[in-house]
Amino acid sequence: MTLLQLEPIAALATAPGIGAIAVIRVSGEGAIDLTNQIFRGKDLTQQHSHTAHFGTLRSQDDAIIDEVLVTVFRAPKSFTKEDVVEISCHGSEFIIQQILRRLTAAGIRLAKPGEFTQRAFLNGQFDLVQAEAVADLIASDSDASHRAALSQLRGGFSKQLLTLRQQLIDFVALVELELDFGEEDVEFAHRDQLRQLMLNIRQVLQPLIDSFRTGNAIKNGVATVIVGKPNAGKSTLLNALLNDERAIVSDIPGTTRDVIEDELFIDGIRFRLIDTAGLRQATDTIEAIGIERTQQKMRDAALIVYLFDGLNISPEELREAVTEVRESGKPYLLVGNKLDAIDNQRRQVLETVVNEPILWISAARQTHLAELTAALSDRVRTDGAVQTGSAVVTNARHYDHLTATDDAIARALTGLDTGVTPDWLAMDLRVALQHLGELTGQIVTDDILASIFSKFCIGK
Amino acid sequence: MTLLQLEPIAALATAPGIGAIAVIRVSGEGAIDLTNQIFRGKDLTQQHSHTAHFGTLRSQDDAIIDEVLVTVFRAPKSFTKEDVVEISCHGSEFIIQQILRRLTAAGIRLAKPGEFTQRAFLNGQFDLVQAEAVADLIASDSDASHRAALSQLRGGFSKQLLTLRQQLIDFVALVELELDFGEEDVEFAHRDQLRQLMLNIRQVLQPLIDSFRTGNAIKNGVATVIVGKPNAGKSTLLNALLNDERAIVSDIPGTTRDVIEDELFIDGIRFRLIDTAGLRQATDTIEAIGIERTQQKMRDAALIVYLFDGLNISPEELREAVTEVRESGKPYLLVGNKLDAIDNQRRQVLETVVNEPILWISAARQTHLAELTAALSDRVRTDGAVQTGSAVVTNARHYDHLTATDDAIARALTGLDTGVTPDWLAMDLRVALQHLGELTGQIVTDDILASIFSKFCIGK
Repeated sequence: MTLLQLEPIAALATAPGIGAIAVIRVSGEGAIDLTNQIFRGKDLTQQHSHTAHFGTLRSQDDAIIDEVLVTVFRAPKSFTKEDVVEISCHGSEFIIQQILRRLTAAGIRLAKPGEFTQRAFLNGQFDLVQAEAVADLIASDSDASHRAALSQLRGGFSKQLLTLRQQLIDFVALVELELDFGEEDVEFAHRDQLRQLMLNIRQVLQPLIDSFRTGNAIKNGVATVIVGKPNAGKSTLLNALLNDERAIVSDIPGTTRDVIEDELFIDGIRFRLIDTAGLRQATDTIEAIGIERTQQKMRDAALIVYLFDGLNISPEELREAVTEVRESGKPYLLVGNKLDAIDNQRRQVLETVVNEPILWISAARQTHLAELTAALSDRVRTDGAVQTGSAVVTNARHYDHLTATDDAIARALTGLDTGVTPDWLAMDLRVALQHLGELTGQIVTDDILASIFSKFCIGK
Repeated sequence: MTLLQLEPIAALATAPGIGAIAVIRVSGEGAIDLTNQIFRGKDLTQQHSHTAHFGTLRSQDDAIIDEVLVTVFRAPKSFTKEDVVEISCHGSEFIIQQILRRLTAAGIRLAKPGEFTQRAFLNGQFDLVQAEAVADLIASDSDASHRAALSQLRGGFSKQLLTLRQQLIDFVALVELELDFGEEDVEFAHRDQLRQLMLNIRQVLQPLIDSFRTGNAIKNGVATVIVGKPNAGKSTLLNALLNDERAIVSDIPGTTRDVIEDELFIDGIRFRLIDTAGLRQATDTIEAIGIERTQQKMRDAALIVYLFDGLNISPEELREAVTEVRESGKPYLLVGNKLDAIDNQRRQVLETVVNEPILWISAARQTHLAELTAALSDRVRTDGAVQTGSAVVTNARHYDHLTATDDAIARALTGLDTGVTPDWLAMDLRVALQHLGELTGQIVTDDILASIFSKFCIGK
């Protein structure tokens, strides 16, 4: 692959705002030379790759803009595989602005969102799935989403798919060669081997496709709704769960994140407690006659926690409520509160009524909460992907291409079984190749690139 | 000076929040070795100073936390003059937190606010005035405050004071030597030379002390109040001024700063328009019988702009209002609105009434606004410090020490003239030395350091 050195671009690479330092990244043809023209201290053009140099940046009238540390990266040994300069300056927005102005005056264009990563992709630093993982990695806010993004960044499933795609390309070439021979009924592509390859591919695709549900939950948080009658103890439970969590996140000073109310991290997975402000209102109840608002919440949820007062609920009430929860078709947990106040016999009666185990807790006494969080976590980890660290699809674009590839290969397999002509077979295989290619970026259009990289932040 | 290598500390050095990258700084004894223990890629302990190395940071169970670029700085060639490692990671708060946790688990303490700069000061990287300039530089949000901070960071007035202080120390030693000879009436310290030195010192101190008023305005913005009757055109004027400014600040994307309403930057100086929300209310007027609220605003202001409707004001009204403005004792501008609607003769009448030039504008037609902003700028630049780039004192602590030094030297000079005994002379000179020493940090106590560096941000 020939390396591209495009026109030089610059952007703030660190978060905006006030910090001790900020880093401005410059990449492209002439990045080192142009930066050198406004730098005093050393001749940057004479420095080795991966070396840092102290000096000053100068305005057009040679006034000092700032004392900076400049690190030089020479193509192709850089993030973009272009010449790159990273300018570490004092973290003042005023200085950052001055430096960016100065760089643009020196002939360096301001970078568009994601433009550095796009160049890295175009220069073969990584494939498209990996490029997209860069954005996911930056946005990751839980252990699970971080792990999924990092796994994708480091090759994850795309390496495997690339190999399989290459094998499939070879077969398609042979199948298409058969077409050249028209009526002669030759078979260059060994049908059994082709079938085996397609089965292999589906075996790789299926778990990836299945992982998207988990992956989506990992990336966006698990939409969890806690429903129950007003006196069931929902707010007590919520507070108990949230307070635990806050104590965990707040022990590292300095990197304080905005604490978002009503988010729970369990085993590294984020649970978004939907509209729990509403849930704390007395009006928000689940009754035998379902209230529309509660039903709407259940429809939006990925997981339902039905909490009831084990002491005061009647078996009839419980049965009706649970029936309603089940009708939602969503995964759910049945949680009985006031464990401390009721006896074994009553628990058994209620479990018999609903004909399944109930998770018993005491929200007020904060007992058995660990079992509850473990159960929440289990509901999300059903496919095991989170725990084993195997590849997880978190991106809807990837999911769409994987599904389309799988469909095409399924059609090709059926075609093989029913003995379709090579041209039909080739057509299905071409569709599969197209989707695999778009997934990993072997096939790209400007539209695809624009839609992917425009979602990036500037400086990435 | 012996270099200290204190226990290793770590902190996020870039602004908190989401960015493409973030930089975590580690400094102190073992910084390189301890970072190396959690880094995979190269042996950092074998790398030269000022070199950057790609690799991964690992958790305690060897899972990858992130792909990072680590730059090694070896003592004393670093900001703190200690061994320093800068870890450039993906700019996710989650990752930053994970890395800081990992570093602390490896035996590196989280840094306190300003601790890196404090270490740099203790290791003689710069004096106290320069150390304080680091914080000012980061906080600077205008050309003038940036220039003042940068000048201080690069030595500014403190180098000059250090030389003079050293000369003074030599004289004090001689004067104190005279004390040892008791009644013998010897003079080791040449009195004329001492007098000349003290005059020199005062010549350096005076402009610095005088510059504080400007310096304070530069650092904190010039508190400017626009007063006038409701129909005078204040809001039209304010909007015209502010819109101009907004157009100027918004042409660099990417580093968008929060636009704070009612701040004006003129020639790099920030003008804070005080309580202009209130000023836009119809109740906010200046009348011949002064309204308490308006008077309070004028008392708080550093600069008063009195705006009146040149077409409709009576000479009597104008005279009374201007009298009130003058009584405030503050610098002011008299600005006549509706220039387009009035003739020369009326302008002369009004100027005669107030017996000084009036700056005429048309707020609605936005004419002569440049003259107004130039006049605002002039009022602040009266001592010339801003334009010439000479040292400006922006820090109240510095101002206090400079004033106290000057007072002590003035007393010593008087003592010299009236022939006081050496012990009296030595006492005044000691006071001067003490204040000069505390100013630049030759004399420090833990309390002084704590009070200065605790105001820094973490990571600096």
